[in-house]
Amino acid sequence: MVSKAQSNNVDFRPHFKTHQSLEIGRWFKELGVKKITVSSLEMAEYFAEEWNDITVAFPANILEIETINQLASKIRLNLLVESVEVAKYLSGNLSAKVRVFIKIDTGYHRTGIAADNSKQIDEILSVIGDFELLEFEGFLAHAGHSYKARSADEILEVHEQSVSSIVSLRDKYIESYPNLIISIGDTPTCSVADDFSAVDEIRPGNFVFFDLAQNQIGSCDVSQIAVAMACPIVAVHEDRNELVIYGGGVHFSKENLEDDTVGIIYGKVVESNENGTWGKVIPDMYINSLSQEHGIVSVPKSQLSGYTIGDYLLILPVHSCMTANLMKRYETGNLKTISRL
Amino acid sequence: MVSKAQSNNVDFRPHFKTHQSLEIGRWFKELGVKKITVSSLEMAEYFAEEWNDITVAFPANILEIETINQLASKIRLNLLVESVEVAKYLSGNLSAKVRVFIKIDTGYHRTGIAADNSKQIDEILSVIGDFELLEFEGFLAHAGHSYKARSADEILEVHEQSVSSIVSLRDKYIESYPNLIISIGDTPTCSVADDFSAVDEIRPGNFVFFDLAQNQIGSCDVSQIAVAMACPIVAVHEDRNELVIYGGGVHFSKENLEDDTVGIIYGKVVESNENGTWGKVIPDMYINSLSQEHGIVSVPKSQLSGYTIGDYLLILPVHSCMTANLMKRYETGNLKTISRL
Repeated sequence: MVSKAQSNNVDFRPHFKTHQSLEIGRWFKELGVKKITVSSLEMAEYFAEEWNDITVAFPANILEIETINQLASKIRLNLLVESVEVAKYLSGNLSAKVRVFIKIDTGYHRTGIAADNSKQIDEILSVIGDFELLEFEGFLAHAGHSYKARSADEILEVHEQSVSSIVSLRDKYIESYPNLIISIGDTPTCSVADDFSAVDEIRPGNFVFFDLAQNQIGSCDVSQIAVAMACPIVAVHEDRNELVIYGGGVHFSKENLEDDTVGIIYGKVVESNENGTWGKVIPDMYINSLSQEHGIVSVPKSQLSGYTIGDYLLILPVHSCMTANLMKRYETGNLKTISRL
Repeated sequence: MVSKAQSNNVDFRPHFKTHQSLEIGRWFKELGVKKITVSSLEMAEYFAEEWNDITVAFPANILEIETINQLASKIRLNLLVESVEVAKYLSGNLSAKVRVFIKIDTGYHRTGIAADNSKQIDEILSVIGDFELLEFEGFLAHAGHSYKARSADEILEVHEQSVSSIVSLRDKYIESYPNLIISIGDTPTCSVADDFSAVDEIRPGNFVFFDLAQNQIGSCDVSQIAVAMACPIVAVHEDRNELVIYGGGVHFSKENLEDDTVGIIYGKVVESNENGTWGKVIPDMYINSLSQEHGIVSVPKSQLSGYTIGDYLLILPVHSCMTANLMKRYETGNLKTISRL
């Protein structure tokens, strides 16, 4: 992703909500990354220990104005605004400088202002312009509708449509704001597309681990998934070809996906190597259901005898962001423990 | 639930995995409750500060033998065993006395031994009997198939079937083990059934809060739901009759249910009172989607003007256990803060 950003001559501001770890963040630093994205002020506070340019990619929550002011006095803080009300509130209550992205809805329809809603954009720009502690940074979009894609081609379609929508704003506003930047970023489009020359910044995050959902969308190969959960086997049920693991909804989250061959699954089991790394996905071996602490794993009958109570299963998660959010730490292949927020 | 246990002359061992809070636990103490259930050794360690009789209602995980020994030296610890392997492991590795329930599968087919599998039950009993630090406590079941019910009548059917299955074991083993007890417990059957005279102990947990899923099952009325999440409104989108709230999958979990009238929902909005309590569910106002930190709330067009950025919405969760697990604390109606594990 670093190379892709460099070859496109765009800034790379990775989203750290997936790993939420200062130490994993240092791996990015080693590759020259200097600015990051997070999804909450709590994460921004955590990462502000080592990063001084942070975008909180979530609509600014005015109830957290105290934290915003504390952070803004310490680091370069970028917030997302999508209403005149919030812009006005900030201009009445900020005590330190904040950069503002106007959030643009390029088709996901979760948050943001439609790119053709000039009236609202102009009103926000006018409030920002009237207050010295607010500085307009540019336009930002998250093409979350890429998550509905099921192939690289479908992802590329979303990418082109989304980029062309937000880039229209540069043409319109560049004269008044010559330094404005266009920021985009979601893992599917950033993983599959190669051309980012029309924008100034990309912000993918999930790619640091990828997961089964990204594989289903078409963002990655299953061999690129870089995080697995180690779950102890606590029971073996030969009569129904199932293992019970200590690994439930409070560990994986209950994110699931519909697998083409076996239906709804909550994780896939991979071959374990001795050094804590793993090999291929084991065919027909997956979590078929999760309750709070239990996971139930379907196992091919012929392989059941290979599993014993007390063994660990390594399981690829459906949604690594949610799984990582629930766990307290990671271990690397050399069994070094990595902490997180 | 206390009255119901008393009138049936059965022990009440509430499951504390739902609230995970020492302070809420004290409310139970005030009502005379003396023993509890949890779903992990981590929770057992937390509650062992104030409780000295704890059942860990999860198949004993032999990889946690150190924690088991530490806890067993401090409190009366009950574990669940459903295999000869685990019974043998415990008898080779325990350093303090542990009581053992044999987990019986009464139809949920998640964990446990079928009630008619005398061979396996006898083998486990034989291992337990050979080791002085293991004591056989009785048979335990969780009729989790009650969660598939959609009416009080269906819940009662599960209750009767499950109780009759496990009670058959008492008749069979009471002569050899005159003190054995029969323990059952899931919120749907314990909420709806009135007759528990055939068993010795009940272990419901979710009823402390209830939630929308329990309401759908038929366990409770929506007015009995005792926990709501307060989420700030961060954006108002008039063009699509939606509010964006700070409240996503990392707060609610992504548990959802299919509502009869509006389809898949992730929470329902209730009327807020001034003192932090709440009133009725607002018709046609619900979370229609969740991402990591965002919730999108559908609002009837006529009511949209009543909501402003910075207001809190109070939202009933689909699954209170998962939501409470993700949050770090509670506030009561008088805005007293209650901590949890």
